[in-house]
Amino acid sequence: MIRTTALALVLSALSMTAVAHAEPKRPSFPFTTDVAYDASKVAPYKGKHAAAYAYIDANKDRDVANVQRWVRQRSISAQNDGVVQMAEMLRDDLKALGFKEAELVPTKRHPGVWGYYDAGAKTTIAVYMMYDVQPIEPTGWKVDAFAGTIVEDHPLGRVLMARGATNQKGPQRIFLNALQAIIATEKKLPVNIMLLAEGEEELGSPHYPDLIAKYADRLKQAKGGVVFPMMSQAPSGGVQMTLGVKGNIYFELEAQGGPQGGPKDAEVHSSFKAIVDAPGWRLAQALASLTSPDGNTIVVPGYYDSIRQPNQEEQELINGVVPGWTAREPELRKSLGVDKWIDGLSGREALTEYLFDTTLNIDGIWGGYSGEGTKTILPHKFTAKLDSRLVPNQTPDESERLIRAHLDAKGFTDIKLTRLSGYPPAQSSVKAPLVQATIGTYRKYGITPDVMPRLAGSAPYYVFTDILKLPIVSAGIGYGTGAHAPNEFIVIDPKPGSKLAGITDAEKFYVDLVHAVAAAR
Amino acid sequence: MIRTTALALVLSALSMTAVAHAEPKRPSFPFTTDVAYDASKVAPYKGKHAAAYAYIDANKDRDVANVQRWVRQRSISAQNDGVVQMAEMLRDDLKALGFKEAELVPTKRHPGVWGYYDAGAKTTIAVYMMYDVQPIEPTGWKVDAFAGTIVEDHPLGRVLMARGATNQKGPQRIFLNALQAIIATEKKLPVNIMLLAEGEEELGSPHYPDLIAKYADRLKQAKGGVVFPMMSQAPSGGVQMTLGVKGNIYFELEAQGGPQGGPKDAEVHSSFKAIVDAPGWRLAQALASLTSPDGNTIVVPGYYDSIRQPNQEEQELINGVVPGWTAREPELRKSLGVDKWIDGLSGREALTEYLFDTTLNIDGIWGGYSGEGTKTILPHKFTAKLDSRLVPNQTPDESERLIRAHLDAKGFTDIKLTRLSGYPPAQSSVKAPLVQATIGTYRKYGITPDVMPRLAGSAPYYVFTDILKLPIVSAGIGYGTGAHAPNEFIVIDPKPGSKLAGITDAEKFYVDLVHAVAAAR
Repeated sequence: MIRTTALALVLSALSMTAVAHAEPKRPSFPFTTDVAYDASKVAPYKGKHAAAYAYIDANKDRDVANVQRWVRQRSISAQNDGVVQMAEMLRDDLKALGFKEAELVPTKRHPGVWGYYDAGAKTTIAVYMMYDVQPIEPTGWKVDAFAGTIVEDHPLGRVLMARGATNQKGPQRIFLNALQAIIATEKKLPVNIMLLAEGEEELGSPHYPDLIAKYADRLKQAKGGVVFPMMSQAPSGGVQMTLGVKGNIYFELEAQGGPQGGPKDAEVHSSFKAIVDAPGWRLAQALASLTSPDGNTIVVPGYYDSIRQPNQEEQELINGVVPGWTAREPELRKSLGVDKWIDGLSGREALTEYLFDTTLNIDGIWGGYSGEGTKTILPHKFTAKLDSRLVPNQTPDESERLIRAHLDAKGFTDIKLTRLSGYPPAQSSVKAPLVQATIGTYRKYGITPDVMPRLAGSAPYYVFTDILKLPIVSAGIGYGTGAHAPNEFIVIDPKPGSKLAGITDAEKFYVDLVHAVAAAR
Repeated sequence: MIRTTALALVLSALSMTAVAHAEPKRPSFPFTTDVAYDASKVAPYKGKHAAAYAYIDANKDRDVANVQRWVRQRSISAQNDGVVQMAEMLRDDLKALGFKEAELVPTKRHPGVWGYYDAGAKTTIAVYMMYDVQPIEPTGWKVDAFAGTIVEDHPLGRVLMARGATNQKGPQRIFLNALQAIIATEKKLPVNIMLLAEGEEELGSPHYPDLIAKYADRLKQAKGGVVFPMMSQAPSGGVQMTLGVKGNIYFELEAQGGPQGGPKDAEVHSSFKAIVDAPGWRLAQALASLTSPDGNTIVVPGYYDSIRQPNQEEQELINGVVPGWTAREPELRKSLGVDKWIDGLSGREALTEYLFDTTLNIDGIWGGYSGEGTKTILPHKFTAKLDSRLVPNQTPDESERLIRAHLDAKGFTDIKLTRLSGYPPAQSSVKAPLVQATIGTYRKYGITPDVMPRLAGSAPYYVFTDILKLPIVSAGIGYGTGAHAPNEFIVIDPKPGSKLAGITDAEKFYVDLVHAVAAAR
């Protein structure tokens, strides 16, 4: 149901206030406008950089090999596997490109990588990169996840299947390939570049703020804004541009026997359940206390209170992309193996919920016996990993405080809460010159992007938008999928007739983009 | 609080009826008598079998080696590891002892072993054995669990530390050592023996009823009753005799995406939680719906309805053992690593709850990511293993029906319930000649046993008590611990001054027991 009057908005706000004292309800996001943002009104970028394009076509094999080299270098941050070697590979590549500064930057865990390319240009941009990857799923991979395998007969064409292919080594090395083409053919880049990469994105970016702090005075000069390379085409060829990200808080809940009862040190025979308290039940009960029975409404008092309604610009952006989203929904659900969205939502309602609501998710639970057959034990410890995606104006500190307070109020003082990571959300405006230049570049390639106000996923962009006050876009053409899943891949050469860009067009896009940003005012 | 009037019992029964329609409450077990059973009034067994005792002393090393040979033979039923080899070892040992019949008995999974020793005696007894063991705990073992290691410097003396040492290979092979001593010195046993072993006790004895059915006509002739060898001494030297066991139902609850929503085939990125249903929450909510917040009261409607109150004999038995139980409680809690029983129970209340109440226990939960650090996924499947110990007059079928009905009534029709095993409880009377003979044998060894009406654990004794109408006792002296846990062991040679029996006394006890049963009327 779409409510379009101010009165409806006020009534809705009143109703939200009222229920804050009763059973918490998932927030609704009533719209006050049906105006739709139209990206097709942005003029296509008109620059031509024929020498760079030709260079890209001539050096395709080498460019593909560069991407393979990156994905073959393991860099699993959660398992400290190959991380430093990948950081060094990135640093060395920057040096080879002519970055005047290129260095590893120590943190308390995995190093960052800083690079500065001085073009003597008027405009400076910053580039965000992450060089780490997710752990490998134990089953489901058709190829060695670190072999850099080219699969010739994929339904979409010739693809590179490997961990990190799309998240995020592939598009990042493709971006560097593009810089290499410009430098080789134009002597230097049209913009100065400050590149700051981290090796802990998959851990929730715990030290990226430290890295930013170290270079903050210089990064604030990057008035052109921040670019994050990403293969942005959907299978249909369309592009979703996202102007923001959710934040995230990741934590563990643990139940273990102690002074309150239950086995402290080791499992006991399950016959003792008759007189021994059970950490397994405590964790199940504590978890269940956090949501409605369907798991879709967070019943932690106050958890939704700080969420703001979509503003005028965000509503217009949503209205602009609803047709495209709605058309893509069946395909998206199919790719996820999901028959329906929660509550049978669809269209604008689903999209608004997806982008504007917070979440509380169980990433894993473990404890006791999980082998074949039966083992009758009362285990001493159960643990769950959870994450909550944060939307404006939620903060990790307040989220943790509310969850802890709720557990305590419900009597779950025996449940240990350990935060593993957390950062707030971030948002850029569609009016920023960087954003307009990016839309213009897409338009040159015949793509009118769906400009999404936000990605439902998380990245530590708040360091750019909130600390450095810079806009940030993730941008790029080409197609990849399988982030955080088996058989991750990107398309290298699409099938004839495909609307997907291959690697050479993806590189040419970046050649145009950096020029477009240099020309933007 | 102890209520001793019939009126109080009626009021209590009325109150239980009333709450069955409101929030279920854990049953209370008000006593109607303070009379205590006194085992010291049973006359000690007076028989002397000097030749057999001497034989045992002379052949101690061989007898220990026999036990080591058994525990070195792996027989993990849940993992089908060494099972048939162990069955063959038992069969061959029976043949070597002079059992006229000794054979493997096929079942749908692991074979049983049948043996018949024809002594031409008036009395026939049955012997229950289980030759399988629990899986090995991944951490915590100080020795190779299958090496049959003799630990010389254990605080309790010289011990055999191995999987199966006490549960149940050790006492069973010690029993056969005793039979060997009688046969060697008296030419034949004083009783006929029908031995029926299974290799699936740790799986919940799914096919033991089939084995019983095959030999039921013959086993019904074992009017002497059924003996289950067990190291029954506590560390203090005392013995708990148990006249019954609880039943058990073991099942899995599984939540997976499907037509109702949620990912069906594989995990998805956790950002989709905003619009995708989550099997993890469904399992947590379904589990939590089964118990009170402390995990100690089963709130499944009707789950407690069929439980009968302790009868006169059972109350007298409880009254008789309360002092011993109460004295042992601190030591028991310490050995379990448990600071206090549920609700701070102690003494008769704790013991009655332990023996007469049903349980619902989580043996394990798993799903999603359980590795180091963070991984942001919405997993497609979560599973929990649960078991419920059943007391008279509960049945596995009714328990499963009530849990399934409750889940359905609460809207958890998407939660799959799979029963892995189940059997009802069993009970023998203290008045049975077999039981009186066993008490008399303990008394000969200076032990007045605590006669417990029931073990809180489970075994498929209903096949004896309900199907064959035979009494059953678990009996034996000596000490072992660590069933279902790392570093399981039995004492071979106790420290000087110990009240614990070593292996030779344990064997002499069984020599006396079979003679005492032969003499009992």
